[in-house]
Amino acid sequence: MERVYNFSAGPATLPLEVLEQAASEMTNYGESGMSVMEMSHRSKDFEDILEKAKSDLKELLNIPDNYVILFLQGGASAQFSAIPLNFMNKNNKADYIITGQWAKKAFEEAQKYGDVKAAASSEDKTYSYIPKTTNEDFRDDIDYVYITGNNTIYGTKYNELPDTGDIPLIADYSSSFLSEPLDISKFGMVYAGAQKNVGPAGVVIAIIREDLLGNENKLTPIMMNYKVQADNNSLYNTPPTYGIYMAGLVFDWLKRNGGLEKMKEKNIEKANILYDYLDNSKLFKPTVNKEDRSLMNVPFVIGDDELEKKFIKEAQENGFVNLKGHRTVGGMRASIYNAMPLEGVQKLVQFMKKFEEENV
Amino acid sequence: MERVYNFSAGPATLPLEVLEQAASEMTNYGESGMSVMEMSHRSKDFEDILEKAKSDLKELLNIPDNYVILFLQGGASAQFSAIPLNFMNKNNKADYIITGQWAKKAFEEAQKYGDVKAAASSEDKTYSYIPKTTNEDFRDDIDYVYITGNNTIYGTKYNELPDTGDIPLIADYSSSFLSEPLDISKFGMVYAGAQKNVGPAGVVIAIIREDLLGNENKLTPIMMNYKVQADNNSLYNTPPTYGIYMAGLVFDWLKRNGGLEKMKEKNIEKANILYDYLDNSKLFKPTVNKEDRSLMNVPFVIGDDELEKKFIKEAQENGFVNLKGHRTVGGMRASIYNAMPLEGVQKLVQFMKKFEEENV
Repeated sequence: MERVYNFSAGPATLPLEVLEQAASEMTNYGESGMSVMEMSHRSKDFEDILEKAKSDLKELLNIPDNYVILFLQGGASAQFSAIPLNFMNKNNKADYIITGQWAKKAFEEAQKYGDVKAAASSEDKTYSYIPKTTNEDFRDDIDYVYITGNNTIYGTKYNELPDTGDIPLIADYSSSFLSEPLDISKFGMVYAGAQKNVGPAGVVIAIIREDLLGNENKLTPIMMNYKVQADNNSLYNTPPTYGIYMAGLVFDWLKRNGGLEKMKEKNIEKANILYDYLDNSKLFKPTVNKEDRSLMNVPFVIGDDELEKKFIKEAQENGFVNLKGHRTVGGMRASIYNAMPLEGVQKLVQFMKKFEEENV
Repeated sequence: MERVYNFSAGPATLPLEVLEQAASEMTNYGESGMSVMEMSHRSKDFEDILEKAKSDLKELLNIPDNYVILFLQGGASAQFSAIPLNFMNKNNKADYIITGQWAKKAFEEAQKYGDVKAAASSEDKTYSYIPKTTNEDFRDDIDYVYITGNNTIYGTKYNELPDTGDIPLIADYSSSFLSEPLDISKFGMVYAGAQKNVGPAGVVIAIIREDLLGNENKLTPIMMNYKVQADNNSLYNTPPTYGIYMAGLVFDWLKRNGGLEKMKEKNIEKANILYDYLDNSKLFKPTVNKEDRSLMNVPFVIGDDELEKKFIKEAQENGFVNLKGHRTVGGMRASIYNAMPLEGVQKLVQFMKKFEEENV
């Protein structure tokens, strides 16, 4: 079978040339005589891979010098625990904005460790919008405010960050990381699971303002202690070396392709093609407020279970795969990450138009 | 450069044919039209990969039905916290046998969560032996006894397990996992980081007796809750899918190559070649008691810093790499995992003999 157009929400499509490079280096990387997978994490070759990945990421996101870059494990779900353990450390309080299932899970997990409040929520309308907040919505004495920057399941994103004053803002950007520029200086911590825009599952990238480190709860498991990870340059123990290597190849690909400004331009172009069609279709309907729409995850519905099943099946037969919506919300969803070519979106819309003609 | 003989302690050498298969499937796995790295962890293709890995592992180790097999993250160091959080749950007490740096780290981490005692230690002789224990050495009311089955840094292994009576025995077998048969029924839990005998770093395999699950500390981070992982078949969130795939390829390779009995035979043959030479060399000396020697990690010394440096350098130039001992103990160490061919050990010994002739 030919390679398909893979609209999976994650793990997700990766740039073909990155995969081809990985394949070509699989049994012998550079002059090393071995696979990156077989390399000691304390070898010079791996050290170079790690440092290049860090410096490329720093360049891509223009990360200020007072932030550390960590490569962690356990997915976003591990950070749901690590964040309160590391940062809920003055008054043991934090406010969360609940914009979807992942924010809610983070919120529920944080309740184990302190006084946590939902400052706002869009659960009333199935998380189809980003709730507006003002500084008044947050308690004065909290240690941080937590948001999910892009909501994979519901297809919403923050276009304007909540005003939290001096209170550190912590954000999960798993599903839109590196899809456009992001002003890191506005955050206490930004993190992302790699398996959307960056590389294989099993790597989390965390970018943390240094002054926030070092006041963790005494019961913090050592691997969740961000200060320990920072002091050891993500090498407290063996990190997921191959995943870091793949992430590095993707960072390099992003640089070769014009960086995040260019990526944003391409992503807007791709998303507009899909949203414009959805806004005018008689069959397919978008589900998200125009102003809150994600560039990465585009959910849509027909509103007829049988017809949706038929669409997903026929799409798959035509090489457009993983268009089924998240198991908790149904419908359809096209995840169009950085690595999804323009052509993939154009062809999908052509296919949808044809399906519409045949089924309206 | 040609592929080298890689004696790294981990990440470590992998079977060449496994790497070649991974390379050939990198851009398109089977009929999927995508890389395993790009596959949803809830897709049928990945489900098949996971189930085959589990059933092959179950077959290889003859794992009884009342044990669960988990694929986790965070390395052994994450389990150092997760083990007391999950299992120190009746009297909040556990005894540890300190046979090296990793056992000591596990012991120190467990002190955060309960009353932990070192029941025995071989620290007095730089961990060069396995301390003998009897049932009397353990406190009556402890929740578990913890050991490291094979000590990567010092090159020792348990040949006879401590008698713990009814108290569950928990063991880190990271560096000898799948190098020979292991009677899982003797343990409450056996676990191993993948990056020695199994696959890439970033995957931990845990095999846990089911009746021990479900009594975790209330503060256990959700990703460290073994019951949650078991209830979700290691899919509570996105697991390290590519690492699991690689582990599966290695399990399949082990099955094709005669399973663990055959592996043990080969590993004994390889280790004997090296130990026999070391026991008779006038230059190189082994560091471990004969009865406690690891089949996987073979440390040795010359006892002359300059000559050791010269040996490591010349070995590297001749394609025998990563022979430097762990940074905390110095000397040399040859890690000869399953994937190290007999020929690699034979050629290393030839090279050592030549070096001995030239330098004695």
